[in-house]
Amino acid sequence: MSDLNFRINKDVFYKALQTVNGAVASSSPIPTMSGIEIEANQDMIVLTGSDNDISIRSVIKNDKDNQLFFVEEPGTIVVDHNYILDMVKNMDSDEVQVQNIDGTLTQFTGNNVDFKINGFNPSDYPAIDFNADTTPFTIKASEFNDAAAKTSFAAANKETRPVLMGINLKSENGRITFTATDSFRLARYVLSAEVEPFNITIPSKTIGQVKSIFADGDISISVSARKIVFVQNGVTLQSNLLEGAFPDIERLIPSSFSRKLVVNRSALLMATARPGFIKTDNMTIIRMQINSADDIVVTSRSQEIGESHENLQGVVSYEGDPLDISCSANYLSDAVRSLNNENVTVLFTSEMKPFILKNDEDDQKLLQLVLPVRTYN
Amino acid sequence: MSDLNFRINKDVFYKALQTVNGAVASSSPIPTMSGIEIEANQDMIVLTGSDNDISIRSVIKNDKDNQLFFVEEPGTIVVDHNYILDMVKNMDSDEVQVQNIDGTLTQFTGNNVDFKINGFNPSDYPAIDFNADTTPFTIKASEFNDAAAKTSFAAANKETRPVLMGINLKSENGRITFTATDSFRLARYVLSAEVEPFNITIPSKTIGQVKSIFADGDISISVSARKIVFVQNGVTLQSNLLEGAFPDIERLIPSSFSRKLVVNRSALLMATARPGFIKTDNMTIIRMQINSADDIVVTSRSQEIGESHENLQGVVSYEGDPLDISCSANYLSDAVRSLNNENVTVLFTSEMKPFILKNDEDDQKLLQLVLPVRTYN
Repeated sequence: MSDLNFRINKDVFYKALQTVNGAVASSSPIPTMSGIEIEANQDMIVLTGSDNDISIRSVIKNDKDNQLFFVEEPGTIVVDHNYILDMVKNMDSDEVQVQNIDGTLTQFTGNNVDFKINGFNPSDYPAIDFNADTTPFTIKASEFNDAAAKTSFAAANKETRPVLMGINLKSENGRITFTATDSFRLARYVLSAEVEPFNITIPSKTIGQVKSIFADGDISISVSARKIVFVQNGVTLQSNLLEGAFPDIERLIPSSFSRKLVVNRSALLMATARPGFIKTDNMTIIRMQINSADDIVVTSRSQEIGESHENLQGVVSYEGDPLDISCSANYLSDAVRSLNNENVTVLFTSEMKPFILKNDEDDQKLLQLVLPVRTYN
Repeated sequence: MSDLNFRINKDVFYKALQTVNGAVASSSPIPTMSGIEIEANQDMIVLTGSDNDISIRSVIKNDKDNQLFFVEEPGTIVVDHNYILDMVKNMDSDEVQVQNIDGTLTQFTGNNVDFKINGFNPSDYPAIDFNADTTPFTIKASEFNDAAAKTSFAAANKETRPVLMGINLKSENGRITFTATDSFRLARYVLSAEVEPFNITIPSKTIGQVKSIFADGDISISVSARKIVFVQNGVTLQSNLLEGAFPDIERLIPSSFSRKLVVNRSALLMATARPGFIKTDNMTIIRMQINSADDIVVTSRSQEIGESHENLQGVVSYEGDPLDISCSANYLSDAVRSLNNENVTVLFTSEMKPFILKNDEDDQKLLQLVLPVRTYN
């Protein structure tokens, strides 16, 4: 056992613990994995948290003007994440002394407070390789998170096809295309980026972690066949990829449309929200009977609960023959919420063909697709 | 079936629905009880929600300057609370038309939206007697809620002795004494009020409802052997009382003390919070070894997790012989949180006798009592 002993600025330590804690699962079949690994070297403190799928590492270094820590004895400890965060947060001092005493017992000392905490044996903690195998590219965190937010809601939340429980990122021809689908609806966002070609699927839960850890600035991203690695300011987050071929969805997306509706975004959102309580099998189906821009009726019906009837307002224009089409109210409202124009465009082919929603017919960035359902009303 | 038909201001209607919905249980063995009863008379609209233990009624009346509703046909309907709140909230108009169509089917109409909703048969809804049997007294809502908040946390949350799952209110000699205890700690608050004598126990969940519905102003309260009734501005909340004799706790409270600690409230709170993660059987026990004002050590220990050690800061004074005493950290912090002086007073007798906490030794209003536990450290 090492004789780890170091002092560190409390706020810097707590922030790094919070960061790596994002990857630690609340319960793990492997006890050690509920710990955070803390490695003290002369020139850096390295914190690691992982649930095997996602791993986060935070490296703290001193800079010339600002001494954040001082290492008396290098070493490694692993302490349960449930203990260490509370302990450091509530410490009564600006600096915390961390000192391994005996075996896996570590002392944390403030001014008038100290703790002696039983940890895990560091040799039981997995060796996690954070090296990226490929040349990284750089992207704005806000752009990545925006693209992910506009697509990830469409991913599957059931494990029937694991590869659908993530976002597919396909890089080719100067674009990265984000796609998510649960096979009943699909969301696609195209980001301009001159990057080497790749085709990977990131688990949905990784998306949430990336957003909470990398909110601003640039992130450096490396993609390999097995993992994706995000790096910013000494923090590395890496995630396993979902295995299996992501369905080739381009052919699902109709390329020509015979009907076009332009409607106020808020009015369409409200028309999907109002019948939200009219559920059959825990799902709200709405039917749109479109005759003309002045005559669009949105209805919903449940044997048990009753029915709703709304003359859709805020219609700017409708082009095409009348249409009678039904779909999930939730899928439609998720799609509309991802759009941000005052008016949104809905492009239909026919009653049982997928329809798409866009900010504008010519928008090449964001596309939402929804499959209609058959109703027997 | 009645031919109920009325129009009502949407915001007034929604607010009244929210109020009575506070009493409706999310699931009820009697289906009708998940409904809200709406009774329209020529001169008032009466809404009722109930879970049998707590019932709330809201009466809406027109005043001369402000026509809030217009009744075309009096009648009564009962509509599931899960539907009607969403429906009225999202209605696209300032006024809602409510019209019984056929049997238990009721139509709710806005501008371009209408719903036809299946309700319950009003004859299945229980007749709830909101009459108070006794002369009411008046009290400030803020005073009642404050007294309840400073005591209710000490009530039992297990059903081993049902009468302990509430707050006892005892009126005598110009005072109402609020008491709650789970038999391991006790909270008592004395309110000055010239009221007829009574001795009742109000369920804890009633306290939360009273607070959310009556935040300001005066409330009128009637107490009988079976129920307590709160009235303010057309809203009536009544609650069953807990049966059984509330323990006579006065004799539990020591009347003289041999040791007195005055300590900064925040310092004591932090000393109870820091070891919060050091649990044995899901409970944190802290031990206070008091030698003198300058030498008070707070420790906590768990075989599995480890131990904490703190030299208590913020001590103003200590009078009495040394003391070595242990108690639940949660019970102590709950008690301290209810106090609001900068410094709080802790009065001890001996190691295994209950100790009390007060804002000040002479404070006759608020008293917190905590039973020590035996430890084998």
